[in-house]
Amino acid sequence: MADLLRREGPEPILRRVIACLRADFLRWPDFDLAPRLASHSAGGVIELMPIADARLYAFKFVNGHPGNTRLGKQTVVAFGVLADVATGYPLLMCEMSVLTALRTAATSALAASVLARSGSRSMALIGTGAQAEFQALAFQQTLGIDEIRLFDVDPAAVAKARANLDHRGLRLVCATSVAEAVAGADIVTTATADKTRATILTPDLVEPGQHLNAIGGDCPGKTELHPGIVAGARTFVEYEPQTRAEGEIQQMPAGYPVTELWRVLRGDAPGRVSPEDITLFDSVGFALEDFSALRFLWEIAGAGPSLDLIPQPDDPKDLFGSVFSRGQAFERAA
Amino acid sequence: MADLLRREGPEPILRRVIACLRADFLRWPDFDLAPRLASHSAGGVIELMPIADARLYAFKFVNGHPGNTRLGKQTVVAFGVLADVATGYPLLMCEMSVLTALRTAATSALAASVLARSGSRSMALIGTGAQAEFQALAFQQTLGIDEIRLFDVDPAAVAKARANLDHRGLRLVCATSVAEAVAGADIVTTATADKTRATILTPDLVEPGQHLNAIGGDCPGKTELHPGIVAGARTFVEYEPQTRAEGEIQQMPAGYPVTELWRVLRGDAPGRVSPEDITLFDSVGFALEDFSALRFLWEIAGAGPSLDLIPQPDDPKDLFGSVFSRGQAFERAA
Repeated sequence: MADLLRREGPEPILRRVIACLRADFLRWPDFDLAPRLASHSAGGVIELMPIADARLYAFKFVNGHPGNTRLGKQTVVAFGVLADVATGYPLLMCEMSVLTALRTAATSALAASVLARSGSRSMALIGTGAQAEFQALAFQQTLGIDEIRLFDVDPAAVAKARANLDHRGLRLVCATSVAEAVAGADIVTTATADKTRATILTPDLVEPGQHLNAIGGDCPGKTELHPGIVAGARTFVEYEPQTRAEGEIQQMPAGYPVTELWRVLRGDAPGRVSPEDITLFDSVGFALEDFSALRFLWEIAGAGPSLDLIPQPDDPKDLFGSVFSRGQAFERAA
Repeated sequence: MADLLRREGPEPILRRVIACLRADFLRWPDFDLAPRLASHSAGGVIELMPIADARLYAFKFVNGHPGNTRLGKQTVVAFGVLADVATGYPLLMCEMSVLTALRTAATSALAASVLARSGSRSMALIGTGAQAEFQALAFQQTLGIDEIRLFDVDPAAVAKARANLDHRGLRLVCATSVAEAVAGADIVTTATADKTRATILTPDLVEPGQHLNAIGGDCPGKTELHPGIVAGARTFVEYEPQTRAEGEIQQMPAGYPVTELWRVLRGDAPGRVSPEDITLFDSVGFALEDFSALRFLWEIAGAGPSLDLIPQPDDPKDLFGSVFSRGQAFERAA
């Protein structure tokens, strides 16, 4: 899969993932939806995210362990499976750390395409870890963003993002504070990873008309925005039952109004109403996005090398005989 | 894994899986438990079954599609993953059709070891499909069952089971009816597959003192026993919240009393009280059993061949750079 992505390049891949995502969001009612199944522990969380339409079933295994980078491991690793609803047979299994970053960025850009004010050109990127470059390029491809202001508490992470984004047609500004990155930006993306209530943005930093793309707060107890920002924003979510527990809106009363993104994409609900609105896409990541990413991969690449995960006995009722040859005990004894 | 099982032989493998299962059932309160997540469609069901203790996380992907045998495919295919709770990293992935049959048989035998009347020697096996031989050998190894009465509506399935079980120290009787198979048997195992309300056993066939091991009824709308049998039996289950929806007891009122098997194994609740009791193990298959099977495999075999499912960038924050080389767009353009 890495070869495939490398051959195509990130920009064309992002454009195609965004097209798949848009098509699947537009047929939202076709899907059997459920909140993900999370297993929390002291160090992090392991989740299963299943979803299906009438033809394809998909799920993703994904963890989130903020302490992993200190061990030289990834905060998030993931793999996904696509299966055939008619037979239950798996069709495709693949690593999804990169696909997750791609589909998260694609979802962010898709949301911003209907929520950010028109003519948006600059984006602040707060947190320049594993997601950062994908976000920058998705917004460039979808909205024509040409200026990225980078900020991270880790200067090495900023240098890394800057080097990766060099020579890709973006003006890169390394900000010395969150305030400097955010001031005057059309879009603010927060992508930080601590599993805690953090306040990456405070209300005084946010300007009328900005679109906030909050992707780091994505599980119970993990938020990035001051609740005052959420209170003053028009808020859009992927799948309300999941976001109520996991998103920035976990800080708000149960009646705090939100709109699901698919309804805006279908024209069933308004997105941004005025150029002065502060819009917030409270993104936590939803199974539909993984479905779209896996479907994309299946359509462009097929199954890839085959994995020996399904026994194929001559007689499907003879599972035993397919493993243990007949009379084996007798032969051993003889 | 097939090589490993073949080398060891089914009987020693079953004894070891039963030992792992018993150890894990005895520490039931250590586990983070949840009913499985099922996605139902016209042709079958696809399920995810997660479970974790403080050290290991496991899940199984498994389908159930009764029409698959008509396509030359398996009714049930499955694979499982074991992951490290501390980092969220997957440790082991393996095919689980065979492991599922092994752990199902091991669980049946473990339950019967505390529920069947002492001195049990004969078992009727109604439904001689993919599970049959595993059941027969697990009961032989655990309880000393030496007579198996085989019955299936498909004579080829009976012939298959008979051939596989030949020369394994069992007296094999091919019955011409369910009634003939059941009459005088100490234990009756039902392992049929139709996704429907079936009545494999009726109350008139069941004798006082018999232990019923019902493994075929395992999802909503799929049962094997006449409700009159359940009403007259002392019933034991794996995990009550799941079995209420999926087991034979879905036919009973919500207040119908059941006992979880782990409590009997720990001595916290009675099992069989009198030699005349009809005991029923209403088995639907639970994630803990897969956990035990995967732990068993991990302990005897390790991870096996490595799968390229986790990217290992030099810098864990540099996911982008690990796939897309820096300046790639520039190089392409140059």
